[in-house]
Parts: sequence; structure tokens; C-alpha cells
Amino acid sequence: MVAIPPGSPLVLGIGDDCAIYRPRRSADDLLFTADQFIEGVHFLRETHKAADVGRIALARSLSDIAAMGGSPQFCLVSLCAARWASSRWVDAFFDSLTSYAASFGAVLAGGDLAQTETLACDVTVCGAVPRGTALRRDGARPSHEIYVSGKLGGSILGLTGGKGRASKAMKRHLNPEPRLALGKYLRESLHATAAIDISDGLSLDLERLCLASRVAAEIEDPPRFPGATLEQALHGGEEYELLFTVRPGTRVPASFGDLPLTRIGTIFKGSPGEMRHHGTTLAALGFDHFAKPLNHFNKP
Amino acid sequence: MVAIPPGSPLVLGIGDDCAIYRPRRSADDLLFTADQFIEGVHFLRETHKAADVGRIALARSLSDIAAMGGSPQFCLVSLCAARWASSRWVDAFFDSLTSYAASFGAVLAGGDLAQTETLACDVTVCGAVPRGTALRRDGARPSHEIYVSGKLGGSILGLTGGKGRASKAMKRHLNPEPRLALGKYLRESLHATAAIDISDGLSLDLERLCLASRVAAEIEDPPRFPGATLEQALHGGEEYELLFTVRPGTRVPASFGDLPLTRIGTIFKGSPGEMRHHGTTLAALGFDHFAKPLNHFNKP
Repeated sequence: MVAIPPGSPLVLGIGDDCAIYRPRRSADDLLFTADQFIEGVHFLRETHKAADVGRIALARSLSDIAAMGGSPQFCLVSLCAARWASSRWVDAFFDSLTSYAASFGAVLAGGDLAQTETLACDVTVCGAVPRGTALRRDGARPSHEIYVSGKLGGSILGLTGGKGRASKAMKRHLNPEPRLALGKYLRESLHATAAIDISDGLSLDLERLCLASRVAAEIEDPPRFPGATLEQALHGGEEYELLFTVRPGTRVPASFGDLPLTRIGTIFKGSPGEMRHHGTTLAALGFDHFAKPLNHFNKP
Repeated sequence: MVAIPPGSPLVLGIGDDCAIYRPRRSADDLLFTADQFIEGVHFLRETHKAADVGRIALARSLSDIAAMGGSPQFCLVSLCAARWASSRWVDAFFDSLTSYAASFGAVLAGGDLAQTETLACDVTVCGAVPRGTALRRDGARPSHEIYVSGKLGGSILGLTGGKGRASKAMKRHLNPEPRLALGKYLRESLHATAAIDISDGLSLDLERLCLASRVAAEIEDPPRFPGATLEQALHGGEEYELLFTVRPGTRVPASFGDLPLTRIGTIFKGSPGEMRHHGTTLAALGFDHFAKPLNHFNKP
């Protein structure tokens, strides 16, 4: 864990969806997040076209901005182009990424290019929120109500269902939708007390929220994507929905546009990170890149 | 080339050492740069220890901040840890990087971790300058004088001289010094009209400065690192010295601290990017990752 020196303009460092930086006398706080998207780890050449890779690589970071209620400003993209990737592939990758960025008001501001054996990219996104208003993981308190957006398990169902690119679930996997409008609504209108995106799966990301807030959670079955199992909905990653908490009595609508908002449980005062599902212990089984030996990015 | 939409808080996009972002009502402009450092492309496991990799990976981006006169604020580090890299290696990498960052007032604010076959890292650094004062590549005008810091060619001499880690030149290669204090001095005191770091070699980076400023340059022999050839001083990369221009008559001291500042030539009105060395055409032979097929980061 890296300590932030006193008086630093860095308001929040490692341990949330984004770091928060406060520029001198600025009206806004700035959010920063970086996510890698790597051949053989996060995607396969066979299932993901160049345009898919560009779009999903950016969506991963945009989802972190959404979780803190931010508006995307710009991105930096570092690409290791594998030897198999033609200039046409690279063009399609950047065309997809930049037009997807533009659809959220963000611009490609820079980056780096190199050539290696395996294709990998690293996408850094900067977002902005009015000073002091970013949604964080650490504000959930006992009695706060837990909600989730969307229907879960579709992405992992698409990836493992064996039905190829045509299935609804695979379309879901290949077309993640960062919930930027929802994040802004949670921050401005619902005054959510904590939020996180569930890109690593509901159980793992709920545990992170509970650990950061030093609370416990009791949940029911989350809403499921058609065909997804309960296991897939509880633990499947690459979802990009938002998990959030609100003060008891907050009037949360049943949907935000077409997107369902479902109450799935309640925060209680237990061991930090403790989770129960229908009264029995729920283990955090989502996908965690931050495995044991790599302790520099430890969660709080 | 990616166009910046009108009214965007992005003041400068792709095409300089850093992008420039202006936060709402901020006293500062923010500088952003990302650089990759990849096994087999930028370094070898045999010659570079974990601490070297951490330090140099950060130095590359810090040098871009120096070239624009900025003060480093924070960094984001995405690491693809190869399977050969033990947790001890990863610890040494991060320890080196974070303590090196701290020595320049910067903090590790986040990033991403994954495991792959080849070790690669991508370091994004944010720097700050008072609003509107960033040094850029595009301000050189005919009659402006061209200066360079330090003595050139040592890094390439160290890498190719075959004398191992003990030689002075190899120490130079393994211990790049981003010229942050000099960059600030150029911005605040000398009011340099343009600046660039020469991480890809003097000839290539001088060409970039001339292209951005739409001017030509006539230079003499640059100062050489002991033992380096003229070719190595003119074209060798990984130098991290600053190349800058000042208005004619500017009183530039012979050194900044221990670092020599040498006048090497003059800007003139010729074809943009044209360069002459002792009256004959000088070709840009430095190292360019941004090779032909990868045209998204085209220089202006």
C-alpha cells in the first residue's frame, strides 16, 4: 500500500475504482483509472475482432469512471501490437476506440506504441466530477440498502455457452455498456452512499465495497440474465453493472431508462467483508487479477 | 490524427511530449504522458535488474514532463508480470519505482496488474504547470538559438560498448536523469520558446521540434559523452537530455548546476523539418517506435 503524503493533491490513491486528484483551485476533482486488455488473458484473437478489442478495452476503464459518478474527459492508450496484427487491424482498433470514446464525450489524448509477440493494451481514462462529490466504495453504513443495475451473468454465459457470436449472451459479452449516465444519476439525484462496478463479479466486488466501508452485507438472489445460472449471476465477471448503496427510505425507481434497478439486500454491522446470501455465508469467487504475490495494489 | 473538439478542456492532444488538459477554473494546466517499457524491446532481463526496470520505466515518462516544464504529481503503473518474475522481483520493481517517484514529489496512484509471457509495463505520469505556461515543441522561430543539456551518446555507448554494468557509459544508460529542475528553469527563468526531450536521439527529436514549429535548423557538433562517437551523440537514443530554443540574445548560463548547457545551432526559415549539420543535410536517424503502419500517433 502506498501512503499519500500529507497535503498531497491526491485525495484518494489505490483502493477504489479510480484515484482522485484535486487540481489547484479547480471546480472539479479528476478521476483516473488504468486497465489492461491482453490477448490470451482477457480476450482471444478468435472470438474478438479488432473493433471489439478497442471498444471493450476502453469500456473497462469507462466503467470505473461510471462507478464514481464521473464524466469521461480523455484517454491515453498504450498498445503493444503483436506481429500478427496488421496495420488494418491497428486502424480498426483505434477507429473503434476513438469513436466509442467520442460517444461518451472523451478524446484520445496520447499514449504509446510498440511491437511485441502478444497483443496487449493499457487504457487510462480521466474523468471529472464536481469537487468533493465522487462516489466511493467506503461510504456504506449499516441499514443502507444494496442495489444492482441490470441482469447479471450474461457475459460469462456468453463466453462459456458455446453458442458463438450470434447468441444474445455473447453479444452482451462483446458489448459491455459502461453505466455512465446511471453513475451520474446515482451521484446527483439518489445521493448513493457507495458504489462500485462489478467487472470482477458481484460477490468479489460486494466484498470489496464491504471491506472499504468496514461493514457486512446480506443479499438475496440478484436478477439474472435469461439463461444464466445463479452461480453465474453471483460470481461471473465482465458485467460492468453498478452495485450501489443508498440510505434507508431512498426512493429508488424500478428502472433507469430501460435498465432495471433491483434491491438485493442490506448492509449490516458485522465483520468487515462478511457476506450472507439467504442467511448462509457467501464466498467472494469473482475473478481477481490482483493475486496474492502482487501486494502493491492491496485492497484496504 | 485525432481532432480535439471545439471547447474541449484538452488544450493539446497527440503530437508533443505530453497532452495538456485544463481543469475547470484550475490555477494549473495538467500534463499527461504514457510510456511503455518492454522486455526484449526496451530492456533485457540479463542487463536490467528489477530496480533498474522500475526506475527507468518511470524516468521515461518523467522526462516528458520535464520537457514541458512540469512538476510531477502522480503516476499510474500497469504491469504485465511475466511468469519468470517472482514476487520478490515485482516487489523490487515497485519499491524502486515508488521511491524514485517520491524523490520527485510524485505518488503511485493506481494502475493494473496481470500475468503474461513477456514482462511489460506502461507508466502514465501527470505533471502540473501554472496555466498557459507549458513548454511546447511548436514555439521555435527563425533566429532562435538551439541549446542542448549534458553530453550526448553515453547511453548508446553503454548499451553497445560491451563493457557491462561497471562502465561509466553503462551507468549512464541504467541511470537516466529526467531533467525536471532544468525544465522548470527553462520555463520560469529562460522563457524557452520550445523544448523536447531527446529520448529518441538528437537528430530525430530536433526534426520533431522543427516539424512542430514549421522551421529548419542548422547545428554544429553536439557535446559528446567521453568515448562516444559523433554518430552516437547525433543519433543515439535513451538520453533524456533536453533540447530547447531561446530568443536571440537570451543569456543562457554555461551550466545549470553541474549540467552543461551548450549552444549547438540556430533555427532558420527553411522547409519544415529540414536540418543541416556543418552545412550538409542531417538525416533523422534516431529510434522511432511510431513506425509507418502505426499512423494514429502521427507527428504534426
